Amino acid sequence: MQFAQLLKDRRSIRDYEPKEVTMDIINEILQEATLAPSASNNQPCRFAVINCRETIKKLSDESKANLLRDFEQKKTNLTPEYADILRNEKFNVFYNAPCLIYVAGPKVVHSLDIDCALAASYIMFAAVARGLGTCWIGLGAHIRDSKLRASMGIDENMRIVVPIIIGYPKEIPAPSARNAPKVLRVISQAR
Amino acid sequence: MQFAQLLKDRRSIRDYEPKEVTMDIINEILQEATLAPSASNNQPCRFAVINCRETIKKLSDESKANLLRDFEQKKTNLTPEYADILRNEKFNVFYNAPCLIYVAGPKVVHSLDIDCALAASYIMFAAVARGLGTCWIGLGAHIRDSKLRASMGIDENMRIVVPIIIGYPKEIPAPSARNAPKVLRVISQAR
Repeated sequence: MQFAQLLKDRRSIRDYEPKEVTMDIINEILQEATLAPSASNNQPCRFAVINCRETIKKLSDESKANLLRDFEQKKTNLTPEYADILRNEKFNVFYNAPCLIYVAGPKVVHSLDIDCALAASYIMFAAVARGLGTCWIGLGAHIRDSKLRASMGIDENMRIVVPIIIGYPKEIPAPSARNAPKVLRVISQAR
Repeated sequence: MQFAQLLKDRRSIRDYEPKEVTMDIINEILQEATLAPSASNNQPCRFAVINCRETIKKLSDESKANLLRDFEQKKTNLTPEYADILRNEKFNVFYNAPCLIYVAGPKVVHSLDIDCALAASYIMFAAVARGLGTCWIGLGAHIRDSKLRASMGIDENMRIVVPIIIGYPKEIPAPSARNAPKVLRVISQAR
């Protein structure tokens, strides 16, 4: 796929076809994600693949419950509007996508957020190049239950940075509104 | 350019042709970077473009001096080997690239690191699609001199997240060694 088309088709997708995503495709995408740059080529990213709607629903419930608890204890900057959405039992933060990938890594890595975000950008483009859609679901990162974490191999020394859903988009929506680039200053060569 | 080629050509480039990068091309790249996703579509990224080798050299000296001071005061996890490299007056952390872009944003934005990293991934791919090369220079982010910051429009309420150099690569090196994807667990659909 051409870059211009990738740019056009890389949208946050929240409505998916029922079609499953095969592990062959997920493995191809993760292989390409290893090409992302990382600080000092440290490659700290780890991936947990949840290709099971039932488990994804459990993870949605767990993340919502933790986030709402944080909200009630004033430990998060979640808006009251978002809190209301989370209180709706039917709302699945992962939008009933067929597949979810967590990108996580060792808490001790200073550049972990950035390294995982760069890997996520590769996952997004690699998915789009295969006709898939993705969405980064910040609301879905709050997984604290030790059994659930252990089932994904994410131990207490690791932090989940990116929850990203993947599936076949029902449609590719128009881009949400974008501002022009906010260029603070251009310092040009004296000629 | 096809995605497979983008993946192949997106390497960290540290050796550039003397050819300058025009502002027309930089503006195209920044326009495409606005398509990067950001938390709640908040679009917090700001760009400072330094298209001037003399200023880039000043920024290199400033960042090296600050980082070495932090090292001597044990405020950074810089290795002694890196510190030795920084002590070499001839070493330009920006590898004499013709153009440097800082991606910065308001310190109060919680997701700033991630939002800026995603914009940076778009800058990298948009540059490669135009035959340019880039390198994220973590060592070049330590700009504290208030006049230098003001000259770039980066005030004290903003944090520099990404210093990224851009230019025409002398060659595209082979990828540095990559591990296989580190997949912690696959949870598959019960069938």
